[in-house]
Formats: sequence, C-alpha cells, structure tokens
Amino acid sequence: MFVAAGSIISLVFAWIMFSRVKSQPEGTQKMINIANAIRKGADAYLKRQYKGVGLFFGIVFVVLFVLSFLGYLNHFVPFAFLTGGFFSALSGFIGMKTATMANDRTACAAQKSLNQGLRVAFSAGSVMGFVVVGLGLLDLSIWYFFLRYWYSNIEVITSESLMIQNITSNMLTFGMGASCMALFARVGGGIFTKAADVGADLVGKVEAGIPEDDPRNPAVIADNVGDNVGDVAGMGADLYESYVGSIVSTSALAVSAGLGMKGMAVPMLLAALGVIASIIGTFFVKTQENATQKMLLKSLRVGTYISAVLIAIISYFVIRYLLSEYIGVFYGVIAGLVAGALIGFTTEYYTSDTYNPTKALSKTSSTGPATVIIGGLSLGMISTVWPVIIVSTTVLVSFFACGGNVDTVLSFNRGLYGIGVAAVSMLSTLGITLATDAYGPIADNAGGIAEMSGLGEEVRERTDALDSLGNTTAATGKGFAIGSAALTALALIAAYISEIKTLSPSINFNLNITNPPVLVGLFIGAMIPFLFAALTMEAVGKAAQSIVHEVRRQFKSIKGLLEGTAEPNYESCVDLCTRSSQQLMILPAILAVVVPVLVGLILGVNGVAGFLAGTTITGFALAIMMANSGGAWDNAKKHIEAGNLGGKGSECHKAAVVGDTVGDPFKDTSGPAINILIKLTSMVAIVFAGLTIAFHLF
Amino acid sequence: MFVAAGSIISLVFAWIMFSRVKSQPEGTQKMINIANAIRKGADAYLKRQYKGVGLFFGIVFVVLFVLSFLGYLNHFVPFAFLTGGFFSALSGFIGMKTATMANDRTACAAQKSLNQGLRVAFSAGSVMGFVVVGLGLLDLSIWYFFLRYWYSNIEVITSESLMIQNITSNMLTFGMGASCMALFARVGGGIFTKAADVGADLVGKVEAGIPEDDPRNPAVIADNVGDNVGDVAGMGADLYESYVGSIVSTSALAVSAGLGMKGMAVPMLLAALGVIASIIGTFFVKTQENATQKMLLKSLRVGTYISAVLIAIISYFVIRYLLSEYIGVFYGVIAGLVAGALIGFTTEYYTSDTYNPTKALSKTSSTGPATVIIGGLSLGMISTVWPVIIVSTTVLVSFFACGGNVDTVLSFNRGLYGIGVAAVSMLSTLGITLATDAYGPIADNAGGIAEMSGLGEEVRERTDALDSLGNTTAATGKGFAIGSAALTALALIAAYISEIKTLSPSINFNLNITNPPVLVGLFIGAMIPFLFAALTMEAVGKAAQSIVHEVRRQFKSIKGLLEGTAEPNYESCVDLCTRSSQQLMILPAILAVVVPVLVGLILGVNGVAGFLAGTTITGFALAIMMANSGGAWDNAKKHIEAGNLGGKGSECHKAAVVGDTVGDPFKDTSGPAINILIKLTSMVAIVFAGLTIAFHLF
Repeated sequence: MFVAAGSIISLVFAWIMFSRVKSQPEGTQKMINIANAIRKGADAYLKRQYKGVGLFFGIVFVVLFVLSFLGYLNHFVPFAFLTGGFFSALSGFIGMKTATMANDRTACAAQKSLNQGLRVAFSAGSVMGFVVVGLGLLDLSIWYFFLRYWYSNIEVITSESLMIQNITSNMLTFGMGASCMALFARVGGGIFTKAADVGADLVGKVEAGIPEDDPRNPAVIADNVGDNVGDVAGMGADLYESYVGSIVSTSALAVSAGLGMKGMAVPMLLAALGVIASIIGTFFVKTQENATQKMLLKSLRVGTYISAVLIAIISYFVIRYLLSEYIGVFYGVIAGLVAGALIGFTTEYYTSDTYNPTKALSKTSSTGPATVIIGGLSLGMISTVWPVIIVSTTVLVSFFACGGNVDTVLSFNRGLYGIGVAAVSMLSTLGITLATDAYGPIADNAGGIAEMSGLGEEVRERTDALDSLGNTTAATGKGFAIGSAALTALALIAAYISEIKTLSPSINFNLNITNPPVLVGLFIGAMIPFLFAALTMEAVGKAAQSIVHEVRRQFKSIKGLLEGTAEPNYESCVDLCTRSSQQLMILPAILAVVVPVLVGLILGVNGVAGFLAGTTITGFALAIMMANSGGAWDNAKKHIEAGNLGGKGSECHKAAVVGDTVGDPFKDTSGPAINILIKLTSMVAIVFAGLTIAFHLF
Repeated sequence: MFVAAGSIISLVFAWIMFSRVKSQPEGTQKMINIANAIRKGADAYLKRQYKGVGLFFGIVFVVLFVLSFLGYLNHFVPFAFLTGGFFSALSGFIGMKTATMANDRTACAAQKSLNQGLRVAFSAGSVMGFVVVGLGLLDLSIWYFFLRYWYSNIEVITSESLMIQNITSNMLTFGMGASCMALFARVGGGIFTKAADVGADLVGKVEAGIPEDDPRNPAVIADNVGDNVGDVAGMGADLYESYVGSIVSTSALAVSAGLGMKGMAVPMLLAALGVIASIIGTFFVKTQENATQKMLLKSLRVGTYISAVLIAIISYFVIRYLLSEYIGVFYGVIAGLVAGALIGFTTEYYTSDTYNPTKALSKTSSTGPATVIIGGLSLGMISTVWPVIIVSTTVLVSFFACGGNVDTVLSFNRGLYGIGVAAVSMLSTLGITLATDAYGPIADNAGGIAEMSGLGEEVRERTDALDSLGNTTAATGKGFAIGSAALTALALIAAYISEIKTLSPSINFNLNITNPPVLVGLFIGAMIPFLFAALTMEAVGKAAQSIVHEVRRQFKSIKGLLEGTAEPNYESCVDLCTRSSQQLMILPAILAVVVPVLVGLILGVNGVAGFLAGTTITGFALAIMMANSGGAWDNAKKHIEAGNLGGKGSECHKAAVVGDTVGDPFKDTSGPAINILIKLTSMVAIVFAGLTIAFHLF
C-alpha cells in the first residue's frame, strides 16, 4: 500500500514538474525550429528502436513461453518479462519527451536569469527521475497485488513465508525485461550519440572547417538527438533496472533470511519514503545570479544531501518499528547512503579539472597524443582503487552489522539481506539523484540551441555555466550508477543462489572458489566485460564511418549547403545513426543474454555463480576505469580550451582532442554498457535457473 | 636423483651451447666496440640492480627472520627466500651475459649465411633456456635433499606423508624469493627498456632528426641494453618462477591428494624428462638460405613441437608406471601441452600482420591516431576470449580427467593436482620454448649492430629476417608466459589452501564466493592488476622524461656530437635509466608484497583466497589484452613501414606510431609485470599464511 502510494506521489510530482516545464515559453521561431528538428529526430529514433526492441522481446517471449510451457520456468515469467521491458521503455520515453521539450525552454529561461535556467532544466530532469521511480514502484505494486491475490487463492500455498517466496521469485523475473530494455536504450543510445558526435566532428570540423554545432552540418541534429537518446533515456532505463532489481532481490533475501513479511517491507518502504525525501530535496535546488560553478554544484548537492539525511532519519524509525531485533539493518542503510556520496565524490575528483589528476593529464599533452593516452588510461586504472575500497567496506559493514555470519544459513542470509538493504538505500533517493543527472544533457542541448539560434553573449555564458556543471553531474552520476549496479548485482547473485535453493533444495551447491566450475565461471566472467567493451567500441567506430560517408555525400550533392543557402538533410543522418546503432548492438545484446545461459548449460549452477561474480568484479573495475578515463580526457581538453597550455588550436589541444575522441566511446558507450551487463547477466541467470538445474554438463 | 640428473644435463648442455657461441668470431673492430658498449651498459645495470635488490632482500629477510623467530613462520623460510632470489638472479645474469656476448657474433655469422645467423642466435637463446631450467631443478634438488635429510633425523616426523608435507611446504617458500627477483628483473627491466626507447626516439628522431639506431644518439646504447635487460633477463626470471612454482605446488598438492611420494615424483620427473626432450628438439632448429619468414618460423616451431610430442609419449609411460591407478593424470599432461601451443597460436593470430586483426588495425590509421588507439584496445580486449576458453578447458579437462570431484577432500585435491600437472607439463619444454623466445632480442640487437657498423645490404636483410621472426616469437612467448602464469597461480592458490589446512586443521574455511570476506577479496584482487598496470605505465613515462632531458643536454653541451666528430656519453644515459627504473619500481614492488599481507590481516584466509582468485582472473585478462594490443600496434606500424598505406612518413604512419608508443609500455612493461604479480601475490600469501591465521580482523 505504501509502495503504491509512493508510486502515485512520485508520478503526480513528475506530472506537476512536467506541466511547469511545459508552461515555459519556447523562445524565438528559430529556437522552436531547431528544437523541433531535435524532437523529430528523437521520435524517429524511438520509433525504430521500439521496432527492433519489439522483435527482440517477441523472440525472447516465445522462447520463455516455450520453456515455461515445458515446465522449466514459472508460467508468469514471460509476462513479467514483458511488463518489465514495457515500464522501462515507458520511463525512457517520458524522460526523453520531457528532455526534448525542455531544451529550448531552458535556453529561453536562461535569457532571464541563471536561476531561471537552472530551475527549468532541473525541473525537466526531475520529471525523468520521478517517472523512473514512480513507474518502478508501480510495476512492483501491480505484480505484488496480483501475485498475492493469485497465490492466496491456491491451496498448495500453506504458509505465509512460502507465499512471499513465490511472490518475490516471480517478481525478480521482470527485472530481466527491464534489463534487456536498458541494454537496448543504453548501448543503442551510446552508439548513436557517439557515432553522430564523432561523424559530425570528423567531416564538419576537420574536413569542411566549419565550427562545432553549426547548423550547416547535416549531422549536428543527430548529435543533439544523441545526447537525449544516450544520456537521458539510456541512463533512465539503466537506473530503473538497478532500482527495481535491488528492491526485489532484497525482498527475496528477506524471506531466506527468516525476516518474513516485515523484512520484505523494509526495502519497499525505504523506496517509498525515498520518494518523499527526494521531493523535499528538490525544493532546495536554487541559485543566485552570478553564481560560480562551485555554487551551482553546491545547490544541487544540498538537495541531494538533504534527501539522504531525511531518509537516514526516517529509516531509523522504520527499522526500529519493523525489525526491532535487527536494528543493525539501519547501519546497512547508512553504509549505502555514505557509499553513494563517496563514490560520486571520487569520480568528481578524478574527472574534474579543478583537481590535480585531470590537470596533470592535460599537461601530458605537451609531449603528444601518445602520452595523453597513456596518462588517461593510467588515471582511469588508478581511479578504480577508491570505489573498490568503498564498495568493499559497504559490503563488510552492511553484512556484519546486520548480524551476518557463516554459522547458520539463516544468519548468513541475514547478512546478505543487509548488503541488499545497502543497495536499496543507495538508490532510495534516486528521484533527486537522477534529476541532477538528467539535467546535464538538457543544459547541454540548451547551450547548443542558444548557440545555433544566435542568442546573446550573456545567455551563452549562462548556458555554458549550466552545461559545465552538467558535465560534472554526469560524471558523478556515472559513478553512482556503477556503484549502485555493483551492489545490486551482488544482491542479485545472492538472490540467484537462494532462488536455486528454493527450486531444488537437494542441489549440490559448491561455491568454493577452487571448485573448477566456479573457477572457470570466474575466468569467463572476468573476460566478458572486456569482450563487451570491445564490441561496443567497435560498433561506435563502424557507425561513425557510415555518418562520415553520409555527411560527405551531402556536402557534395546539396548545392549551396556550405554557403548557408540550402538546408541539409538532417533526417537522413538521424535515420542512419538509428539504423546502424540498432544493427550493431544486436551482437552485444545476444551475447549478454546467451552467454549466461550457455555457461549454465555447460558448467551448472556453481559455474553460473562464479560467472556472475567474475563479471561483477571485473566489470565494476573496467566500467569505472572507462568512465573516469573518458571523463578526464574530456575535461583535460576543456581545460586546454579554457586557455591553458596554449589554448584552442595549439599542438597541446590537438593531442588532447585525440584523448577526448578515444574517451567518447569509453565514457558514453562501453563503460555504461558494462553497467547494464553486470545486472543483466544476473537477471538472465535467475530467469533461466530452472533450465540450468535440469540440464548441465558438469 | 632424476631431478638432480636433469639439472646437471641441462646445465652441461647450456655450457656446451655457451662455448659454441663464444668460439664464434666477433667481427670487425667497430662491431666489437659497439658490442662492448652494450655489454658495459648491461653490466652497469646489473650492478646497480643487484645493489637495490640486495637492500630489498635484506629488509624482507629481516622481517621474515623476526617473524620466524616469533614462531609465525617456519625457520627455513628466510633462507629459502634468499636462495630462490639468488638462483633467479643467477639465471638472469648468465642469460644476459650470453645474450650480450652473442649480439655481434650473430651479426658476424649472418655475414656468412642466414642459417649460420639463426644457429648462433638460437644457441645463445638456448643457454638462457637451459640455464633457467637447470638452476630451477638444482635449487629444487638441493632443498629436497637437505630437508629430507633434516626431517629424517627428527623424531617428531613419524610418517612418510608428514615428511613430504613438510618438505614441500618449505620448498614452496623459496618461490617467493624467485618471485621478488622476477619482479625486479621484469618490471625494472621493462621500465628501463621502454624509457630508453621512448627517450631516444623523442629527442633523436623527432627533435634532432637523426635516424633510429644512430650512434650519435646518446641513448642508443641504453636502448640496446634495454632489450637484453627487459626481454632476456626479465623473461628468464619470470619463467624461472613459473617453472619452479608449478613443480613445487604440484608436489605439495600430491600430498594432500593422497598420492604420496609417487605423486610427488611425477611433476619432478616431467620436468627432468622435459630437459632431454628439449635438448633433442633444439637439434631440429635449422633453415636453408633464402628461407621466407614462414619457413624460419616453421623451423623454430618444429623444434618445439618435437619436444612436446616426445614429452607426451614419455609421460604416458611414467604415469602408467608410477600412478597406474590414476592414468587420467596423463590427460592433464596433454591438456597442458596443447594449451601452451594453442595460446601461442592465438597470440600470433592477433599480433602478426599476416593475419586479419593487425591488418585491419593498420587500416584504422587512415582516420588518425584516435581510431588507431580505439582499434588496438578493442583488438586486445577481444583477444582475451580464446585464451580464457583455452585455460578454462584445460582446468576442466585436467581436473575431471584426474578423477577430481567434490565428493571427498581427497578426490577434490586429486583434481587440483591434475591442474598442477597441466601447468608443469606446459612448462616442461621450457628449455626450448625459452630458447626461441630469448633468441628474439639477440637477433634484434644483431640487426642494430649490423646497421650501426655498416655491414652490407645482404647482411642487413638477413638480420632483418631474423629480427622480424623474433618479434613473432616474442609475442607468442608472452602468450605462453601469461598462460603458464595463470595455471601456475591456480596451482599456487590450491597449494595455499592446503598449506593453511596443514598449519591449522581446525580453521573455519568458507570459500563460498558469497561469503563477504571472499567477495571483498575478489573485488580488491580484481582491482590490483589495474593499479599495478597504471603504476608501471606511469613509471615508464617518468623515466622517459629524465632521458629526454639528458639527451637534450648532451646535444647542447657536447660540441661536434651531431656532426659525428665527438662521442656521446652513453654511460650517463644507461646510468640514468638504471637509476630511475630502480627507483620507480619501489612502489609497485612494495604494493605487490604488502597488499596480500594486509588483505590477510584484515580479511583472514578466506579473504586472501578470494583476493588471489580475483587477481588471477582479472590479471590474466588484462595482461593478455595489454600484451596483444601492444604487439598488434607494433606490427601494424611495421606493416605500414613495409610500404602499405603510404609507407614510412605518411599520415597513416604517424598515426600508427602513436599506437606503437602507447603499446610499448603495454606489452613490455605492464603486461609482463601483471604476469609476475599474479604469482608473487600467491607466493607472499603462502609465506605469510601463519601470520594470517594468527591475526585477522574478520
């Protein structure tokens, strides 16, 4: 009930924010035209994506249906799979619609004042944040009521705990739908945005010599569409999945930890109360005119921190009331909240040019592109240290504080439940966290529109301030997404094992790391993130090539284009990006779904558990490395462009551009894709658990 | 006895080869002068390295001595540590002496014919190979006889199996000495060689505009010294460690698998018989004049394959005789041999420009350095797939074929013993494998000497053919080193666990991957290779900077240097490289030794086991990626230099050079360093097992 209420509050708040943004003026006709072109492009992308996704979901649905018909899967699974995908897609759809609507409105509001601009962009970001949270909770509520009603009417279900078990294990499976959708949105969007970006730059800036964001460039709209497609819809679907996955898996663990209905209620309540804490937090996001970047950042931070403190206080009373014997669970909540803030901070430290690492990286440009690459790679690699320590500490604190120990199965599971609670608490303030994150691409596009439509110097300065802040929040948002994905994945692995034990209590579990199937699973799991990163990077390269050819063709065949007397064909570039991004992500998508099943069929459940652990630990390190290397290269370039080391056009700048180009697929395609990968593999493993038990070689 | 005999045969053979090389003519006075300069540089490097290493070994010895005095370690440990380091250093020393002696002799022999050149270079490589094997077996024999004699005279030791257990667990600890020495040789050498290479190129080629390998460049001798220091001495110490580590750990596993004295004899016999098989193999290495690169490669391959087939045949009879009940162990031998060959082949496939991946990589240079970097990174990432599958298959085959299953501790350990046997068998033909590998840098330097001393066109063509072949064998050698390191590390982890069980039979082992200390260990273990790679890459950058300054200084202050009328000061560059490489490796070395101890003190034995597994699985993938990316970038550049895509000096070539420069520390410093890391951490964990049992937080 609480969850349903939280869902409704969240959606209503999103609706209010949406209306507020919609009521803002759109600006000049030129601004409206550009914004319309971006909207049209985004719609075209979504339309084609849903076609491709529909086909994929159709095929997987049939496979799941056949398997459930043969008795290897529960018969709800295929439908849960569909709803998970549907709600994930819906939140991406709404978020993107709002974002494309807010682009020009933000630019227009920035004409009045910096604070106005910030409010509009942030409100639009909030729509995304609260829609994701609201739909996530809605999906949870619907299935919960449905399953509870269903199982209450079956006589076989005798005990309450058995009923909860059945409910949670069914609910877990809709995570796979959300996961698959997230994969398409995040990876497809990531390929799209970087292909357009790289393609536009290579021909427009380098060959034709026209500036960035110039309306004569046929790929410029695709570039802007990409920001919305990758960073808004993709990020939303990614975190939707983490959010729902962590709540359901923790609820499932509550059952195996012997905490019953109350233990199951805690993560759900945390999520529902998080909605209210987030809403309160959003009211603190405002700034004065002439605010420095530091002050802007502080204003966003204040909102996030207030939400976190609120949820910490409320959770104490909730846990004291519901799980008075296990007050240690409260430390799990605190651990999750602190970890979220700290990971965000380390990301900022390594990627912002206000700190030493990125400053030092920009200096390596004086000895050419090779040293920039080496410097950026080692920066990214070193930046994995703190997040690993933070996540490790969170795991230990939340496990042991919740009374976890290896003495009995029950006490062990209680500790695992604690890890799940930490994941949920980290994600409980997702509404506002995602708002500060989705705000970034909106401000970015507002800047683009301001530039393309020739608004005044002052306006551009304001949108630049907002945009620059957006880069920082995007980087910390990525850190947060990766950290929460790792904790969610751990909760999912634990849920996988308890799911297997439920399905087949007599199974011979041996998760000893020296057991060869586990060991081989670990090896294969550690390799998959590398393979996935490589495939997505190559996809960006290939898609960018097709854009290069199209832009060259238009420059040649459309007369008067470079002189500004003829319009380029924006749609063809958007269409090309859409098509190639959808085509090129088929292989990674198939891999992510098929490999866990294959590993299960060959190595059995022990191998799958090892595989999931291997993917999580290596994927975590690799995703952080790629995100932070990419972010640091980007900001090192910006640091030089701001007038340091010779500024724009110098040899240093050229070297830094090489780093930035390498970093683009790193931070916006491969890194985030690994995020999805580590959760999706766990989800697939859970769904196909029955099949793995029935058939396996070792 | 057999082992001692194998050791003596190996050392005698190495001596014969050494004499044969020494009896070759040295060539013209100019050649002798250059060779002398390289020798002097190498000696200077070794002298200073041994000073630094001496200090490090002294400190660790004192720490170990105090710990053994307090009863946390066996009292043989500090001494075993020293002998391991001593023999490892000695094999590096002899190998390098031979290599520097053979440089000019190979160039001189190539004046006569291609076959003569190949024979001299290969003979010199053989010295290295058989010295490593011989000294490894010698160290094993000495300790075995000593401990056996010692324990036979103690009344406490009542049973044979207890005695063997004591012997093997003591012998395991000298691996840590070998490991530390390998770290210094490999990482220090890797930093040295790449700093000299990059420094020489940046000032000489780019700034002063003089060709590569030009005697006017003060860093040119340091560059040549580096080849010997990194690729000969470093590679030798690396494989010495794998060789000894795999034999001892497998012997230790024989005890816990209940296979007794006979089970212990099998790995030792395999190693001893491998010496003979390797010697026979070397006689098949020869070629005709006008041989193509393919034929040259074939001639080296024939030798290796003949050795492998011989050892396969002999091992069948050995196992049938000694372990007639467990004939499945034979399949472990086969699995190891096949895996060694296959990993070498996949490395060649991904890094040689006769295959598609590197050809495709060279084409990415047409769109600039950024695409070369992205292409090379994804090539390296994708190239991890097959090695992981090969190692995984080897683990499964050798475990299950040896009768391994999870039913009883004994049968489980029998399977682990099988994995150890696979590692030993892969390394059994190390004599000839290492010979083909160490041959590379000798041929490389011979080419350099031929060029510097102005030998005829025909000679240079021959040394180029030998050098080009050397690049391929170096790449396959790296693949082999990584593959064997992974298997050795697995055997060491298994040995670690059985060591703990011996020391403290009542200990509460829970290696379940969901047990938080194991999980956190996995996380930290997965992060360490990234950190290590970053630190070593940064070290190369810093050391190269110091060379750049020194070369610039000499060009300015020594009058007539660029005109060729004055001699540069080669020694100062060598000295600078030596000093900075020794300084900059202190931090990585400390990390590699301290982190496993720290993890043990915090997370206990379960955490250490997770840590070792995490380091091994991620380190394996990362090391392969870095080695193959680097190799492919190198050969893509060479492919362009051979006249493709515009050839030398074209825009494509410039882009490819960026890739090659990034690849240098990848393939010659960080990748190989990770190799050592995954074994050294296991060794340290074994040595400090007693301390971990006594003190741990969780």
